[in-house]
Amino acid sequence: MFRPVSCAVANLKDPNTAAAEIDHVIRECYIQSRPVYIGLPCDIVEDMIEGERLAQPIDLAYPANPEEQEDYVVDVVLKYLHAAKNPVILVDGCAIRHRAQKETYDLVVKSGLPTFVAPLGKGCVDETLPNYGGVYAGDGSNEGVRDRVESSDLVLSIGAIKSDFNTAGFTFRQSQLTTIDFHSNFIQVRYSQYPGVRMNGVLRKVVDKMGKLNVEAGPKPTNRTSSQDNTQVITQKYFWPRLGQWLREQDIVLTETGTANFGIWETRFPAKVQLISQVLWGSIGYATGSCQGAALAAKELEEEKGEKHRTILLTGDGSFQLTAQEVSTMIRRKLKPIIFLIQNDGYTIERMIHGMNAEYNDVQEWKYKDLVPAFGAKEGEYKTYTVKTREELDQLMADDNFNAAPYLQFVEMYMPKEDAPEALKLTASAAERRNAKVQGA
Amino acid sequence: MFRPVSCAVANLKDPNTAAAEIDHVIRECYIQSRPVYIGLPCDIVEDMIEGERLAQPIDLAYPANPEEQEDYVVDVVLKYLHAAKNPVILVDGCAIRHRAQKETYDLVVKSGLPTFVAPLGKGCVDETLPNYGGVYAGDGSNEGVRDRVESSDLVLSIGAIKSDFNTAGFTFRQSQLTTIDFHSNFIQVRYSQYPGVRMNGVLRKVVDKMGKLNVEAGPKPTNRTSSQDNTQVITQKYFWPRLGQWLREQDIVLTETGTANFGIWETRFPAKVQLISQVLWGSIGYATGSCQGAALAAKELEEEKGEKHRTILLTGDGSFQLTAQEVSTMIRRKLKPIIFLIQNDGYTIERMIHGMNAEYNDVQEWKYKDLVPAFGAKEGEYKTYTVKTREELDQLMADDNFNAAPYLQFVEMYMPKEDAPEALKLTASAAERRNAKVQGA
Repeated sequence: MFRPVSCAVANLKDPNTAAAEIDHVIRECYIQSRPVYIGLPCDIVEDMIEGERLAQPIDLAYPANPEEQEDYVVDVVLKYLHAAKNPVILVDGCAIRHRAQKETYDLVVKSGLPTFVAPLGKGCVDETLPNYGGVYAGDGSNEGVRDRVESSDLVLSIGAIKSDFNTAGFTFRQSQLTTIDFHSNFIQVRYSQYPGVRMNGVLRKVVDKMGKLNVEAGPKPTNRTSSQDNTQVITQKYFWPRLGQWLREQDIVLTETGTANFGIWETRFPAKVQLISQVLWGSIGYATGSCQGAALAAKELEEEKGEKHRTILLTGDGSFQLTAQEVSTMIRRKLKPIIFLIQNDGYTIERMIHGMNAEYNDVQEWKYKDLVPAFGAKEGEYKTYTVKTREELDQLMADDNFNAAPYLQFVEMYMPKEDAPEALKLTASAAERRNAKVQGA
Repeated sequence: MFRPVSCAVANLKDPNTAAAEIDHVIRECYIQSRPVYIGLPCDIVEDMIEGERLAQPIDLAYPANPEEQEDYVVDVVLKYLHAAKNPVILVDGCAIRHRAQKETYDLVVKSGLPTFVAPLGKGCVDETLPNYGGVYAGDGSNEGVRDRVESSDLVLSIGAIKSDFNTAGFTFRQSQLTTIDFHSNFIQVRYSQYPGVRMNGVLRKVVDKMGKLNVEAGPKPTNRTSSQDNTQVITQKYFWPRLGQWLREQDIVLTETGTANFGIWETRFPAKVQLISQVLWGSIGYATGSCQGAALAAKELEEEKGEKHRTILLTGDGSFQLTAQEVSTMIRRKLKPIIFLIQNDGYTIERMIHGMNAEYNDVQEWKYKDLVPAFGAKEGEYKTYTVKTREELDQLMADDNFNAAPYLQFVEMYMPKEDAPEALKLTASAAERRNAKVQGA
């Protein structure tokens, strides 16, 4: 069952080879960033094996590209890069998944080229850099971004994942004739493929040998709260830019599939903010569980290295209901996440796609804050908040104790039911147009 | 991915055949009681298809066995049955899954043979019948049952599922030389297989043609509360027989993997009690979700046919934490289950198998009752109870309002941490012996 979707499989039958097989599978998982599978027959689980191997760390270094092949590809890339008049860089999810952040950072800084991120690539680029230009996702792009990317005569596309939500409903308009794709196991220049070379090594050499490039300016990314309107309602348009002002360096931000995953496109990050999301799978409930894991890692980083990371979850009421009990694990492990629960009466993303007022898009109304003590959190070890107005939100975000994240904090934040981030509306209407087209065909 | 584990697969690509393909897959699912798979490509979801077919019910009747073949098998079965000196009937899960309850009932009543159930078969046989003898599960059998079954010279085994927990850790001692197996797609007499015949038709003819059999008495099943000890503690040994006295005809009982699935072996059911459990998969969290489905069906049966079924869930704290939010759906749909939450401090079944006091067998301590209002249940639409002593349990079970199940009721019942049903202890020690044997080999 799992073999076709696993990059390495071990079915442990022999205690003599089990340790080596396990190490092999773990290594492939890390190196390839793809799923693996270990089968553990129930009649072998209590077998003893020799543990000497544990003293030797698994070699997790990426194998170097074949040198001649790598140099060849680098030359091709540089030829096109030097010929381009207004190239741009577009960073996507696989740059993170395949750990090319450092190479990407160096490319962005040294080249000075206008740099954009696809939604899954957000968090990979330092958004305080002068050449950072915002989120590109076809119809759902930040203001000014779409024109700039699509009028470029060369896009250096790093780790692209062209899935539905990541492209705002397949509305990318990026010609392959003006694209160089950098991937974990091949490079593609226009239509020429170069298999067997990993982007990390290629990018490193491109940075080293780049020389002088043509650089035209990109758009300035927005970073404002659109507080022109006189309302106290916390609209999507208000919240996401406001969040960017509140975030700090080193924060770990998790956004759930739903309004959060689209709203975050409007949030400009301080440097060194990590974003965890899985737009690719659209699997609701993921973010709360993932927040538990991230907060646990943050706790360990603080204890072992003195690093201070806040873990901040942004999730919707509908998604939260799927994995709410992960909050119990956070309490049990004394983790200190800040959870923003967007209380907007149901599955907003589904309303946008189909059935704005349909009953199947409603959810049972929980008393969300009451869950925290019900899950066993003790007085003094947590705090909950209700936020219904911009003033209340601003007050909370100015509260030093809140900002210090001393324990688990749960914010129930009310937002209007039929309000959605602009990018989500555009994605939903792209889906509608596509359906209409299919129907007509 | 799904094809190897599906008995029918449709990947809907053509609106002209989609309706017929869907009907085919649904029919196979019902007839074969096996998983099916329908793929719905996202560019076809909004296609319109002709709906005339909906007026025609899907034919869900089992196809008749080939007559000559069926008669041949029936003759063989009867030959062995008449030759047997002290035959017994053993009913297991596939008798329920493949809807052979009526044929089984008629066989049990007409033959008068001592009749036993495997754990997964519990609920299939009317336990008030004089020839009902209790649960057979190898080492975990009810008192007196094991000897009677294993000394029989012919076991009519209906719908056997010889999985780990269902056989108390593979401790069945039933020779194939003294067994006739009735299955959904074949019959096996000793080592002779008769493929292509369904048990339902064969059992019907066996009942019709059975004539006089040798009938020796079986053991009387126990149905007592072991209240000899002077404690007020609700022990496993006290609770499960006590539950049997409280249950009523027509009740739907759901038991979770854990102490409930083993404890229920000690509960003698009134007639027409349905038991839903999935001992086979041992997948914790199933029972709470399943309870939601069963309670919804019970509600429909009451509204449409005036039938009154109580839905009673017996689950442990550890399992409940996996799918607790299904209680929210019960509230939303105004369902009226009675939920017994066994509060015994963690994964008891796992403690028995490995790590009696290990931290990984503990769970976060929830305020379980507080979840019900936190999930949005309104005052007057639910009731919660705490039960810590036998007296409190007995009082609750004598409470007419409680027994009438007028709304969702949630009972937090405290049981000792290291206490387990006898059958679970025996299963766990069988697993230990098996492991020890493997180790030694």
